[in-house]
Amino acid sequence: MWKITDSFDKDQITNFGNKYLLANGYMGYRGTMEEYGKEELVANTILGLYDQVGTSWREPVNAPNGLFIKMSFENEELSLRTKKPLKHQQELNIYEGLHRRETSFSVEGGQVTLSIERFLSMASVHLMAARGELISSVPITLTLQVGIDGNVWDINGPHLIGTQLCELDETSLLFEAQTNEEKKKLSVGQTITVDGKSRYIKTEKQGFHEYLITLEPNVPFSFDTFSATYNENDGENPTEQVVSLLNATKKEGYLSLKKAHRNIWANLWKKSDIEILGDEEAQIALRYSIYHLLSIAPRHSDRQSIPARGLSGQTYKGAVFWDTEMFMVPFFQRTDPQIARNLLMYRVHTLDGARKKAKSYGFDGAFYAWESQEYGQDATSDYNVTDVFTNRPMRTYFRDKQIHITGDIAYAMWNYYEYTNDVSFLLDGAAEVIFESAKFYVSYSYFKESKNRYELLDVIGPDEYHERVANNAYTNKLAQVTISIALKVWSFLEAHYPNELSVLLQKTKLEEQKNLLERFQQLIYVPAPDESTGLIEQFDGYYQLEDTSVATVKSRLLNPQEYWGGAYGIASDTQILKQADVLLLLNLFSSSYDKEVIKRNWAYYEPRTEHGSSLSPCIYAMAACKFDNQEWAYPYFMKTATVDLTGETKQFAGTIYIGGTHPAANGGAWMAAILGFAGLKVTDGQLEVDPKLPSHWEKMKFQTIYQNEYYTIEITQGGQKIWKN
Amino acid sequence: MWKITDSFDKDQITNFGNKYLLANGYMGYRGTMEEYGKEELVANTILGLYDQVGTSWREPVNAPNGLFIKMSFENEELSLRTKKPLKHQQELNIYEGLHRRETSFSVEGGQVTLSIERFLSMASVHLMAARGELISSVPITLTLQVGIDGNVWDINGPHLIGTQLCELDETSLLFEAQTNEEKKKLSVGQTITVDGKSRYIKTEKQGFHEYLITLEPNVPFSFDTFSATYNENDGENPTEQVVSLLNATKKEGYLSLKKAHRNIWANLWKKSDIEILGDEEAQIALRYSIYHLLSIAPRHSDRQSIPARGLSGQTYKGAVFWDTEMFMVPFFQRTDPQIARNLLMYRVHTLDGARKKAKSYGFDGAFYAWESQEYGQDATSDYNVTDVFTNRPMRTYFRDKQIHITGDIAYAMWNYYEYTNDVSFLLDGAAEVIFESAKFYVSYSYFKESKNRYELLDVIGPDEYHERVANNAYTNKLAQVTISIALKVWSFLEAHYPNELSVLLQKTKLEEQKNLLERFQQLIYVPAPDESTGLIEQFDGYYQLEDTSVATVKSRLLNPQEYWGGAYGIASDTQILKQADVLLLLNLFSSSYDKEVIKRNWAYYEPRTEHGSSLSPCIYAMAACKFDNQEWAYPYFMKTATVDLTGETKQFAGTIYIGGTHPAANGGAWMAAILGFAGLKVTDGQLEVDPKLPSHWEKMKFQTIYQNEYYTIEITQGGQKIWKN
Repeated sequence: MWKITDSFDKDQITNFGNKYLLANGYMGYRGTMEEYGKEELVANTILGLYDQVGTSWREPVNAPNGLFIKMSFENEELSLRTKKPLKHQQELNIYEGLHRRETSFSVEGGQVTLSIERFLSMASVHLMAARGELISSVPITLTLQVGIDGNVWDINGPHLIGTQLCELDETSLLFEAQTNEEKKKLSVGQTITVDGKSRYIKTEKQGFHEYLITLEPNVPFSFDTFSATYNENDGENPTEQVVSLLNATKKEGYLSLKKAHRNIWANLWKKSDIEILGDEEAQIALRYSIYHLLSIAPRHSDRQSIPARGLSGQTYKGAVFWDTEMFMVPFFQRTDPQIARNLLMYRVHTLDGARKKAKSYGFDGAFYAWESQEYGQDATSDYNVTDVFTNRPMRTYFRDKQIHITGDIAYAMWNYYEYTNDVSFLLDGAAEVIFESAKFYVSYSYFKESKNRYELLDVIGPDEYHERVANNAYTNKLAQVTISIALKVWSFLEAHYPNELSVLLQKTKLEEQKNLLERFQQLIYVPAPDESTGLIEQFDGYYQLEDTSVATVKSRLLNPQEYWGGAYGIASDTQILKQADVLLLLNLFSSSYDKEVIKRNWAYYEPRTEHGSSLSPCIYAMAACKFDNQEWAYPYFMKTATVDLTGETKQFAGTIYIGGTHPAANGGAWMAAILGFAGLKVTDGQLEVDPKLPSHWEKMKFQTIYQNEYYTIEITQGGQKIWKN
Repeated sequence: MWKITDSFDKDQITNFGNKYLLANGYMGYRGTMEEYGKEELVANTILGLYDQVGTSWREPVNAPNGLFIKMSFENEELSLRTKKPLKHQQELNIYEGLHRRETSFSVEGGQVTLSIERFLSMASVHLMAARGELISSVPITLTLQVGIDGNVWDINGPHLIGTQLCELDETSLLFEAQTNEEKKKLSVGQTITVDGKSRYIKTEKQGFHEYLITLEPNVPFSFDTFSATYNENDGENPTEQVVSLLNATKKEGYLSLKKAHRNIWANLWKKSDIEILGDEEAQIALRYSIYHLLSIAPRHSDRQSIPARGLSGQTYKGAVFWDTEMFMVPFFQRTDPQIARNLLMYRVHTLDGARKKAKSYGFDGAFYAWESQEYGQDATSDYNVTDVFTNRPMRTYFRDKQIHITGDIAYAMWNYYEYTNDVSFLLDGAAEVIFESAKFYVSYSYFKESKNRYELLDVIGPDEYHERVANNAYTNKLAQVTISIALKVWSFLEAHYPNELSVLLQKTKLEEQKNLLERFQQLIYVPAPDESTGLIEQFDGYYQLEDTSVATVKSRLLNPQEYWGGAYGIASDTQILKQADVLLLLNLFSSSYDKEVIKRNWAYYEPRTEHGSSLSPCIYAMAACKFDNQEWAYPYFMKTATVDLTGETKQFAGTIYIGGTHPAANGGAWMAAILGFAGLKVTDGQLEVDPKLPSHWEKMKFQTIYQNEYYTIEITQGGQKIWKN
């Protein structure tokens, strides 16, 4: 499938930057034109390389644009920045990870067309490659500039200092710089394969080779350009690595590199594709969602995870949220478990950060960062929102009160282990994370003697509009589950790895604490469905809040940009929630609750949900499937699956751009399809499906992996087939 | 002493309404002119009669003005409302509870002077009386109107409905109405003693007799008017009571009534006066403070207490705050214990309200109202402040989190009992209140297992700018003290009143709970002075807040009216406090702390205190005396003692008038003088003083009562004398 746009719309530049994103897990290159600069948010965002300038938000570093290409004619730029094109096409091949643009400009009574194909190599993740072609209807001599442009998007930069630009040889350039905070080296090299003589031109942040290209009518002229990017996280001498990769690249050539890249993409799709018959729109949206997940998965390292906005830029501080464990890992776990393992190992490697955070708040164990950066430090500001009325920073509690993050991680780890039977993962650190997570909840909790129960006070649940609540059902359940998991791990290690257990218990100081964990597991208060209504109260006192509608609350806005939550937000004193909360609990642990309970809670909470987060609709979609109502589920599935296709999400908070891609929603779309409509599950060690196809879907077909074996699953309205490959 | 103003200043009308207030415990008549109306905030505020209209704030009812007097000449009002006077004097005799005005107007080439003396009878608290005199320098015929005016101040009214106005006889009028909410009857009668024929005139809310008075030059003409006020709280038929009182009044006559009134006042001063030599300013301020306390004390009933703004109007909802127990009871307990008993018995009578409030929040025992009205119900709104930027109500937590109120009451009750040895008070309900208070704290608390202690979470301490904090030192200490008191009461009753104890334990379901109380007393966390700095942290995490100055914080105001506290107030994330908090604790329990500790905390917290409450400076004054620094104390004493004399307090919150008198500050001034400078205390059952007179004070002399015996105390710079009367 090629995603095609047939015209040029200036207002869509930012949106298309996300929509046509290329990525390969190491870096993400926005869907901008090769001649664009920082105003158009050109960015090659590097996974795991962060920087802070002064007290501004710490965020990922965007490398300079190593695929800079610009043409002009007699000092007039032939560029979408400055000139209206005769024709313009932009295309994304989601099956092969290829981006293509073709733009024609009128010139000298004729027209010149520039076509460029580019990709971020999946075979060699430090490499970007592009092949350009020029063709003119009239004889003409054009100027072509190809090189490296440091004028890229930077929200809280400049992050690169000490920039050095030089010519390596007649066709190759080198850009070297350091990050501002940690002085980490970053090198970008570029080389071009072209016939002709060039001139080297250098400005402060830009270096390129300039060619005079004389075109005969309708005779195409083509050239290839390659760019290599390394930073100090990849080795001590990024420049050496850049030079070495460029040399190898030149020898290999564009077509060969592209072939290796396409092979990997083909293999990825083989493992991950979902075929839907009877719903072209859903088919496109779902595949587009899967494309994004495949693009941004870090295959090269288990020390990085996927940020909330993927590799589409610097928004959300490039930080890793619970999005990864709760909304993306389920996809990878069932299609490419090594990726899931990489993502979860990132949490093992950042356990010390979580321990430090817990300690800083006076708790034991692991309190994971709400917005995690490379060392597990929490990038969340205590003032994450600006008051639109006073322009003052507002004290927010995402960092210190959203304690469910630790349980999300422990849950995802155990789930991965159970699903894959990957014992090495437990021994490589997951068991330790789980033990530290259990300790955290015990130390956070208080005991209420009159009720003979542990409680978790002063938290924020998934519904962030209600701050500092007590006994959020989801959070308390996750805490209980975390302790249960810890006890299961304890028993498992005791039986099979007693030495490892003993070391671990000593390290985590849990030797004498089994009773305490068992007591907590038994006595932690988990709000249960009310006997008569079947409803679970989201947190203590939720029902006492004003019971109103999303529309009514919205009508109270005085400023369209104002924050709905916090102490005085329009939603705060009402039952209106930002996103699935009780339903998240019911969906995750659906086997512990009656279908009728799930349905009643769905019917109660959905009309009260603003879906102010892209994480919300997929939960309602999945949950509706749990009580066999795929018709209720379908619109929420579609809303999730089309998030990045339409780009119709909140793009600005005040004056700050917060857009980008939504990998959690992409994962949510996959979950709604596979865990919802197909009903994929494991019962007594057997993979099975419990399908609830939307009535207009004729067929669903997909692959999945369970305990190291690949299965193909085909579901029709009348039946189902599962076979091992 | 006569408080005299010699000129007329329109801008001072509201301030003088407070400053020249007359009251007798049953009602309070603002210091307005007899011809004034609602625009000038005329009010006769009735203690304990409340009303609510719609969803507006519930507040006390102002009775119609039964002392309405207006004169005119040829249809021109001779009134301060409309005409500039030639001369005007307003006087308050604080020793006799007499108000006097004398106003001269130019008229027909001469001048007419109206003088009126009035009082609210201490001998007969339903009675107001006035004697008027007219004198003219030229022959003239004036119109004099005397009667009842229903056009009085009403913040959230109209509270009176079904108004009936009629003539009882040629000189007497009757006003009858009902409150809006509870249909309680209110009757006001008025009668005049005057020579001459009258005409009865009635408008919608006003009824009066009109006389034509012909004056010979310099020959005074005088008249007396009396007004009686009863409401259904005083008996089933207020009108009968009014008529009966008016008849008796007429027989007795003005001078006889005044004599009875003056006798009572003389006796009150005998018990309460403080003589200061060497500081006239302090002498005046202190006596003026005592005047207010004496005026508003409810002698007629033990079912009412003193509202935070006394009887000066409807502000603060006429509600009773902790002000009474913590800032006024100490004065009455040591000068007129029966009044202290009445005030505390109000809490006994409203125990059910406190039990209901506790239950509504899911707690046991007694959670007293933060703003208590007649049945002990809490008048505090969940939205007590309006956001000046959005005009939206702001969720405030005074009602649900300011739990120290219960401990304040229990502490005051025990303190009263210990001081007076009034066992009947314990048996009449105080013991039950104390038991229920102890239960409340136990049920509110959580146990922190890892620290082996009980904690009180999510509270507001006296410093209201910091909401929802954990382990406020003052609150936790009060909780501990409350439990200790309960255990002492338990032991006392066990020894002396075992039957009464048994009934009480059964009623309060405490039979088997002694161990629990002892455990709580022992394990409740009370933040202690740091070993190296001597400082007590106000609440968990206080030191982590921005450490800045009051001036810096103030400079951040965007709007002079904006609220400093709440979630995002300018003080909220800083160490700036509204009022004494840790110092309140140290002052109250000064014998448990080293002088050096008190001093260090004073030096730390005072510069961080905004003194945004009139309850604050007196605490710093007393506390400074505890470490022998009367020079630090003195300015805070003076600030407290002059609050109502200068009227320089916050008068408006947004557009709402919140002014009035400040009885807690009046009590605070007395405390600073007697418990601070004189150092009055009891050691081993012996009354003694530990004087720290300011260096320019030559002598202090006062009376006090302890365990039913009156003492006179005289302190000079060199010595002290105490003798029983």
